[in-house]
Amino acid sequence: MSQLIRCKGFQAAGIAAGIKKNGRKDLGLIFSQVPATVAGVFTRNQVQAAPVLLDRKRIAAGTCQAVVVNSGNANCCTGPQGMIDAAAMAGCVAEQLGIDANTVLAASTGVIGVPLPMGKIAAAVPQLVDALSPDGFEDLSRAIMTTDTVPKMVHCQAALDGKAFNILGIAKGAGMIRPDMATLLCFICTDLQAPPGLLYDTLKSATDRSFNRITIDGDMSTNDTVILMANGLSEAAVETEKHRDIFQQELDRIMLRLAREIVKDGEGVTKFVEIIVTGAVTREDARRVAFGVSDSNLVKTALFGQDANWGRILAAAGSVGVPLVPEHMDIYFDDVRMVRQGMGCGEAAEKAATSVLQQPEFAITIHLNAGEQSASVFTCDLSIDYVKINADYRS
Amino acid sequence: MSQLIRCKGFQAAGIAAGIKKNGRKDLGLIFSQVPATVAGVFTRNQVQAAPVLLDRKRIAAGTCQAVVVNSGNANCCTGPQGMIDAAAMAGCVAEQLGIDANTVLAASTGVIGVPLPMGKIAAAVPQLVDALSPDGFEDLSRAIMTTDTVPKMVHCQAALDGKAFNILGIAKGAGMIRPDMATLLCFICTDLQAPPGLLYDTLKSATDRSFNRITIDGDMSTNDTVILMANGLSEAAVETEKHRDIFQQELDRIMLRLAREIVKDGEGVTKFVEIIVTGAVTREDARRVAFGVSDSNLVKTALFGQDANWGRILAAAGSVGVPLVPEHMDIYFDDVRMVRQGMGCGEAAEKAATSVLQQPEFAITIHLNAGEQSASVFTCDLSIDYVKINADYRS
Repeated sequence: MSQLIRCKGFQAAGIAAGIKKNGRKDLGLIFSQVPATVAGVFTRNQVQAAPVLLDRKRIAAGTCQAVVVNSGNANCCTGPQGMIDAAAMAGCVAEQLGIDANTVLAASTGVIGVPLPMGKIAAAVPQLVDALSPDGFEDLSRAIMTTDTVPKMVHCQAALDGKAFNILGIAKGAGMIRPDMATLLCFICTDLQAPPGLLYDTLKSATDRSFNRITIDGDMSTNDTVILMANGLSEAAVETEKHRDIFQQELDRIMLRLAREIVKDGEGVTKFVEIIVTGAVTREDARRVAFGVSDSNLVKTALFGQDANWGRILAAAGSVGVPLVPEHMDIYFDDVRMVRQGMGCGEAAEKAATSVLQQPEFAITIHLNAGEQSASVFTCDLSIDYVKINADYRS
Repeated sequence: MSQLIRCKGFQAAGIAAGIKKNGRKDLGLIFSQVPATVAGVFTRNQVQAAPVLLDRKRIAAGTCQAVVVNSGNANCCTGPQGMIDAAAMAGCVAEQLGIDANTVLAASTGVIGVPLPMGKIAAAVPQLVDALSPDGFEDLSRAIMTTDTVPKMVHCQAALDGKAFNILGIAKGAGMIRPDMATLLCFICTDLQAPPGLLYDTLKSATDRSFNRITIDGDMSTNDTVILMANGLSEAAVETEKHRDIFQQELDRIMLRLAREIVKDGEGVTKFVEIIVTGAVTREDARRVAFGVSDSNLVKTALFGQDANWGRILAAAGSVGVPLVPEHMDIYFDDVRMVRQGMGCGEAAEKAATSVLQQPEFAITIHLNAGEQSASVFTCDLSIDYVKINADYRS
């Protein structure tokens, strides 16, 4: 990345603390030079990791100055010791930084059910804090990777009434991704000024338009965490409705970009596919049909096989319980109409659709022709490598 | 199969009519020498194949004398021509057998969206009827196979007040199997005597206890059909509550056995796994958790990898929206306790659980310890071969 990515008053670091067996970076830190307002969105899984439980509590106060995060261990299903370890991980960092422990959040990702190696983490914290730098976000983005193959970082600069501000987002994804943001970690720093309530509303909307629209394998993790910190060190402050719209728009862009990168880098993914459902009676109907198609293993294996098997798409659409009339439905692969009124459009269309499927990225549009509502979901194929990666994950 | 499998007054046949490209058997027929009472259970997919729509209508009359079935083509998403073809397929058979066309049902399985090759089918019907034989059920069971690797046929003999009767069940399954019986065809013949209403109630209960408890890939087909015919040619008649219980019990056994065989023969399956959820507050809660675990791609790939990854099981259980307390949960692999109060039981347990996972067949029991209700589901692993088979299905 040639562009220098910075956000006023924020520093980051990523180092190898020996949590991952392969010696890669596995411990990261974000630090704001002043306490920031904060909002968070977390997994809705009934099984929640210790750091998620810790953060939910701390974030209620609306202020945060640092986030410490490890990969290689999810600190989930680790019992009372897990809670102690999550607090200890944050505590070490607070001590070393000389800040209030209640303003430090923690996040973890990796294998479930193994105690956090607190000895290694505690020993590495001084080095971690030493490594803090305004240019440390790329290191951080590497330190949170599990089966991700590339780090994910997006930056933008915009202005409110001519006053510039930055938003910097870092995420990791890979397996177990679906609405409710399974094993997804995302940290967003901005130097504009905004109260926690506004941050939460903006973050919630942006999450619905990004991470809650992606699916890789239909699974939902125990550790999903999206945290947004605003330290107010730029000149910009969100004071009017128009400011709010600009902030929302920029945050949407950042998070949607991260969401797309996460799907593209999903485990074993060879195809990035947008499933668009239009003409539904309600938005919820459109969403359910879009996820029904996006999560179908038969559709996803056909995508992997570059097979324009529209019958599986129709069958998946029909399986979610949303009333629909197959004879009214049309299906397009990009611009190629493959299905007209519930029936195939013949060999020429199939040939054209097959060339669409040979691309790494395309859209499938399903017109229900029943109403005015629509929804879109980003999904991917189900490949042999997905199975290989997940059959061997712990070994 | 060494045992001679027969059911009084029923004949069957299976021949190659050239619908499948590979020259295998693809057209089958069941014929009762007298009209039988009949009941059926069909897919709840919103997209339903033409023969399903035809059968739903015809079965309402309560009488049926023959069922004609083809593989290699689902006659689904084939528009008005599909309805004409389904009726024509049944009509040819009625004509050749000299029976009322309204007493002939049709079923199809195979690729969606391709017109039924009616010319080939019509031309093959005389040979099909000629081939009818009391010993023709194995040929029939082969003629309905798609990606199945073995035919599935179960027979039992029981008695009501000392009067013997037979039940003979034939099924096909493989891909796209989940509750609501995706691309499952099942035909059950019995020579006892029972009215259609009683047949339906018994069939519905048996379906809930068998086909609606299995899942291979979470997909639901457009063609699922279970038909039960009773021709009354034995001495046995269902007249008392006790008779009804005996019939239910035998039908449950037949259909459960077929359901298990279908999962075992699922696409690319190497593991047959029963997921048992106990201690739920409601039966529906237990069922939802059991299906959540059974349908999780991460759990299924771990089963394929013989990895006792109980964290994925907990995460999948927690993802379906049923309230649960992880700290109260225990998980067993067969008799090996792997999780106690939401935490792993250590390396010895993991080693023992891994040997359980090396078996081709085992149970995973999840104790929620929240109530008295339970449910069990049969599932399988997600293997590299599943992806290979489904990526290449149409090519």
